[in-house]
Formats: sequence, structure tokens, C-alpha cells
Amino acid sequence: MTVTTDFFEVRPVGVVESVLVDPTLAPLQADEGGFPAWLVLDDEVRDAVADIAVGDRVRVVTWLHLARRDVLRTHPRGDPTRAQRGVFSTRSQDRPNPIGLHMATITARDDMRLGMDHLEAVDGTPVLDIKIAL
Amino acid sequence: MTVTTDFFEVRPVGVVESVLVDPTLAPLQADEGGFPAWLVLDDEVRDAVADIAVGDRVRVVTWLHLARRDVLRTHPRGDPTRAQRGVFSTRSQDRPNPIGLHMATITARDDMRLGMDHLEAVDGTPVLDIKIAL
Repeated sequence: MTVTTDFFEVRPVGVVESVLVDPTLAPLQADEGGFPAWLVLDDEVRDAVADIAVGDRVRVVTWLHLARRDVLRTHPRGDPTRAQRGVFSTRSQDRPNPIGLHMATITARDDMRLGMDHLEAVDGTPVLDIKIAL
Repeated sequence: MTVTTDFFEVRPVGVVESVLVDPTLAPLQADEGGFPAWLVLDDEVRDAVADIAVGDRVRVVTWLHLARRDVLRTHPRGDPTRAQRGVFSTRSQDRPNPIGLHMATITARDDMRLGMDHLEAVDGTPVLDIKIAL
């Protein structure tokens, strides 16, 4: 079976605002702590975000714009003493489609700015989606 | 703050093969059962998938190609008796960037074909990524 479509377009709906500007300081995996951050959403998605409130637990979907898309094998956790593995068996940011998934809780809301308890993405990371957690 | 990039390109790395061809029969949410399915991956990601094995628990990231991207408010679970909510507060497929997230366990592997215990996506759904679950 062949995929007939070459690509699809993802369009940012906002951006991460964070004190984290140096990616080398980011936690290695999304559940290893991280920094408080804001999502600053575009006015075009005002209706989509209308019912998001403080206390909501959400999964934020980001585009990891600093990642390499041509890396198919990597050392787990960047540790050269560990054998390389295919990136689908790792949580490396480097992968063919560098989509980031982040669980977080909404701590504040100021119009289209959403405060997050922690988010492991550098300042300026594009936001693609917010999905309420079950 | 303004996002300066208009869009990014996501490129399918494979496709879902499923007996589920009628989207109206799909479970409403990703954790509500679903059908066994295969992921048929492209040869270009052979190295990325090299270490995926039977028994692995993975999160499959798909592109929900039948979704509507212009829907910002919807009735939860498609129930018109329930008040509309912003799509970021729902799990609707219809949303600005229709990225699907599916937890599944690998049940079989035949070269670049991965058997999944269940996957709530119709036949032909493009696959964007596989992330090993923690």
C-alpha cells in the first residue's frame, strides 16, 4: 500500500512562552519536570478555547521546530554509551515528524493566554492543538 | 506575540489498514475499544522502526484526514442535546489540526507491517509517528 499524499499542512494556533530558551537545559523526557510556561493562542481559535478553564488537565500538541527530521537512529537519552535505537523506540525530539506531546494542568487564564504548571518546550515552540485529558 | 511561520509539513510514514471503512462506526473516543488494525510503514522509516517488537506499548500519531478543520465548536460526542463546547475541550476529530493519538500494543510484526490490538482510525488513515510509551 502506498501513501498517495506527500504531505499535510499543520498550522500553528499559538506559541509557547517560557523562560526556557536553551534547549540543552530541557528535561530529556516530557514527564521529567519542566518549567512553568504560557501558551499564547491566536485570536482565530478563540471559539475553540472558549471552554478551557483553570484546573483543566490537557494534552498540548506542539511542533518541535528545533528537531532534526533526518535522524532515524539515536542513542537513548543522548547517552553515547548506550546502543543506538530506532527513533520510534525512543522519545527523542529528532524524528521524521517532530510532534511533541505534553501533559499539563491549566494554572491561569488571561484571555488567550493559558498558564501551564509545566511544559517541556523552549520559548517560541509552535502550538498545534490542545486536547482535554480524560 | 505572533507566530511567524504559516505552516509546517507533516509527511506520512505509513498508513492504517483496517476493516473499519465507515467512520460512523468508529468509537467516539480513542479509549473506547476499537478494531484490530495494521500499520503499514514506508520503507523510508525502516531504521526508525527497527527496534519495535511484539509486546511494545506505543502511542500512534495519525492524521485524521476525514476531519473538518474549520469546526471550532461542537456538541460533545455528537449529541445535539448537549451544549456546544470549544473543540479544545472535546476529543472531537474536527479541530484546526486533526492529529489523532492512539494508545495500542504491538501484537504482530511482519517486516514493515505492525499488528495493533486496536486502533480507532479508518482504513487509509495516514500515520505520522510512533512513540514508545513509558
